[in-house]
Amino acid sequence: MSNVLTMNQLTNEEIHSILNDAEQYKLGNGWRPSDTVFVSNLFFEPSTRTRFSFEVAEKKLGLQVLNFTAEHSSVQKGETLYDTVKTLESIGANAVVIRHQQDHFFENLIDKVSIPIINAGDGCGHHPTQSLLDLLTIKQEFGHFEGLTVSIHGDIRHSRVARSNAEVLTRLGAKVLFSGPSKWQDSTNTYGEYVDVHTAIQESDVVMLLRIQHERHEEKDQAKDYLYEFGLTKEREKLMKKHAIIMHPAPVNRGVEIDGDLIECERSRIFKQMENGVFARMAVLKRALQQIEQNQEVMKHVICS
Amino acid sequence: MSNVLTMNQLTNEEIHSILNDAEQYKLGNGWRPSDTVFVSNLFFEPSTRTRFSFEVAEKKLGLQVLNFTAEHSSVQKGETLYDTVKTLESIGANAVVIRHQQDHFFENLIDKVSIPIINAGDGCGHHPTQSLLDLLTIKQEFGHFEGLTVSIHGDIRHSRVARSNAEVLTRLGAKVLFSGPSKWQDSTNTYGEYVDVHTAIQESDVVMLLRIQHERHEEKDQAKDYLYEFGLTKEREKLMKKHAIIMHPAPVNRGVEIDGDLIECERSRIFKQMENGVFARMAVLKRALQQIEQNQEVMKHVICS
Amino acid sequence: MSNVLTMNQLTNEEIHSILNDAEQYKLGNGWRPSDTVFVSNLFFEPSTRTRFSFEVAEKKLGLQVLNFTAEHSSVQKGETLYDTVKTLESIGANAVVIRHQQDHFFENLIDKVSIPIINAGDGCGHHPTQSLLDLLTIKQEFGHFEGLTVSIHGDIRHSRVARSNAEVLTRLGAKVLFSGPSKWQDSTNTYGEYVDVHTAIQESDVVMLLRIQHERHEEKDQAKDYLYEFGLTKEREKLMKKHAIIMHPAPVNRGVEIDGDLIECERSRIFKQMENGVFARMAVLKRALQQIEQNQEVMKHVICS
Repeated sequence: MSNVLTMNQLTNEEIHSILNDAEQYKLGNGWRPSDTVFVSNLFFEPSTRTRFSFEVAEKKLGLQVLNFTAEHSSVQKGETLYDTVKTLESIGANAVVIRHQQDHFFENLIDKVSIPIINAGDGCGHHPTQSLLDLLTIKQEFGHFEGLTVSIHGDIRHSRVARSNAEVLTRLGAKVLFSGPSKWQDSTNTYGEYVDVHTAIQESDVVMLLRIQHERHEEKDQAKDYLYEFGLTKEREKLMKKHAIIMHPAPVNRGVEIDGDLIECERSRIFKQMENGVFARMAVLKRALQQIEQNQEVMKHVICS
Repeated sequence: MSNVLTMNQLTNEEIHSILNDAEQYKLGNGWRPSDTVFVSNLFFEPSTRTRFSFEVAEKKLGLQVLNFTAEHSSVQKGETLYDTVKTLESIGANAVVIRHQQDHFFENLIDKVSIPIINAGDGCGHHPTQSLLDLLTIKQEFGHFEGLTVSIHGDIRHSRVARSNAEVLTRLGAKVLFSGPSKWQDSTNTYGEYVDVHTAIQESDVVMLLRIQHERHEEKDQAKDYLYEFGLTKEREKLMKKHAIIMHPAPVNRGVEIDGDLIECERSRIFKQMENGVFARMAVLKRALQQIEQNQEVMKHVICS
Repeated sequence: MSNVLTMNQLTNEEIHSILNDAEQYKLGNGWRPSDTVFVSNLFFEPSTRTRFSFEVAEKKLGLQVLNFTAEHSSVQKGETLYDTVKTLESIGANAVVIRHQQDHFFENLIDKVSIPIINAGDGCGHHPTQSLLDLLTIKQEFGHFEGLTVSIHGDIRHSRVARSNAEVLTRLGAKVLFSGPSKWQDSTNTYGEYVDVHTAIQESDVVMLLRIQHERHEEKDQAKDYLYEFGLTKEREKLMKKHAIIMHPAPVNRGVEIDGDLIECERSRIFKQMENGVFARMAVLKRALQQIEQNQEVMKHVICS
């Protein structure tokens, strides 16, 4: 079973293999299934980037796409996620891509459904395909992870991106720094060192900003205050290393995490990350689906012999 | 015109022909249109199984799918179902699949639009493709309908499934038993005999459970009470005949109509029914659309000669 | 860049070229892209005709369709239209079709995104593809525009259709009359002459009715009063010229702008307009997308040489 649920679950070798596949897809090469394959996208939370980059990835692979929205479904009649996924499996889905507000939603599914599950974001938990597209963007820039310094700025505690990226970047040889309001520090995330914003920006090869997720916590920081105290202002950008880049998972709160004028500056890889998201997701879908085809090949062989 | 609106409208011969076609589709065979054909799915009520099994059926037939949702449409500006369907017909839909909360919604459409209408559930009225997938599941199991006993359990009065299935099963030679709370008996449905739950379960080849439709009537029964008084408990399952099977149109209220542990037991055909839904719907779409192609052939012939 | 934002922007020559292309598509001929092309439809207001005729047009051209709905997107988190379109561009959309409640929404996009933008209706502003399908319907009927009299009836002030059509019809050689309640006259629209309803109907080759847009202004006219005072009653229809036709952009308020019995009468082109909408939009998409292919051809050539 080729679920993609968390980054921890993937070995370094598997990560490098996915990144290589993504680079092949970017060049227009790579595996596509020979048979008709159905994938269902189940998004229980709003999404533009993740949802549509999965859909583009699926269509570039020639897959048939079933877009599921909770409010038009039997979830309205109380049907559980487990029964919903079992239903989609029964009617022919060969894989499911799920974003859900519940942390670790997939724990009720693994070993109980027989099709691969791809985690497109679970609550405050994980977001592995975001990590993979971030890694792809860094690899394209620097060619390697060893020896790089990556600072992650903002709400470390509630961020799926901070959790996934800090662990995997450390594992791949990078040094991780955290920066942001002390109330958002996360004592359970031991893969980085807390430093002040100036130090973080000066020492980094990659300045990775997190979104202030107004929709996830009650207190709304004053936008301007946040920018001047913790964000990437034009002044702070001048402190960055010559070849350092700016990343952000988006949607960006313009003028909060970053000065609006920097979003499309030369150092910014923010829209490049979105473009890479398609290729990273093609590679993840390949990993999930290629086994199906191999199994079918085996079955065909058995039937023929 | 090859509408599929109610089961009553289909002769026994037509039903057997649809079931045969469905079995061919299950084997990977069967008609597919040679031209581009558009089908629009109009679901005015939430649905997972019916909606997505139609979409999978359509895509397996190579059709182009237009998914209509009322809240994004001119229905918001007061446009009627008739004008909506006429619009979709004008812009190129070759058939429409409709679920609507109004009983007999199709009476305002037949003989007024020139494309086939497939009823995907009307109010408390009919649900012919559910009946067809139920029949397909029974036929796969027993090879015939004559002499079988099928008990239908639950809210007979408000169920589209009870209405359609009791009539057609009787017509095809099966004996139908009804069981459930007396307040939900339906004096207008004369195709079955009311018996107590033990008798129904002991005598049946098929135990067909209905969903308690909380969303359709005010009083909510206490879930546990219902299971112990009228549902399929583990104790009652032991009374079933050796080869008897369990069916349910789903979504299942786990622990209400049936003990949760029985849903995926060996006797259960609940997920099999969903799988069969795709093939039954492919056969229904074939019946609706094949005529179009024949008409086009005739037209081509006329133009050429 | 081949945006289609307003009719004013298109020269007479470009309009005739689009109409010719639309007629070719109606005959089953015309350009289709050879590569995989993605188009995203962003509808921020309800729509049946425009939305689905774009989708049918896209699918008839063999395009890959990404249907965006605001309430499932990061617009919920405050993402702007600009950032949404930039995102879709980054993940691979080759063009966007947008309906938005804000007048001139596209002014924040032009020269800032590098993919074509097709305006599917902006607030009370413009609706160029509606104009083009109206022109196509008139051209099919009369073969030309010069010397025709077209009367536009109803809420001239708030109508995107009145604004676009009066300007372009005048420019193409037709005479435009306006008719309707004085409170809905539009002193900024100088392309027509206000006359009483009888004069307008008697003198017209085309009687073009506008929808009473209850959803756009507070006061609701009494429906029957409107019909008898300003609408197309059966009596007034008898005053029409022998070959004159009835048009309406729909959805029609039956019995308000027009007697319900006239909607499908012999003179009515209301459903024909919808059919033509698909072909007009195919031609507009061709104009937007063909350049992309030519650019790719140039690039391929450069790479090869």
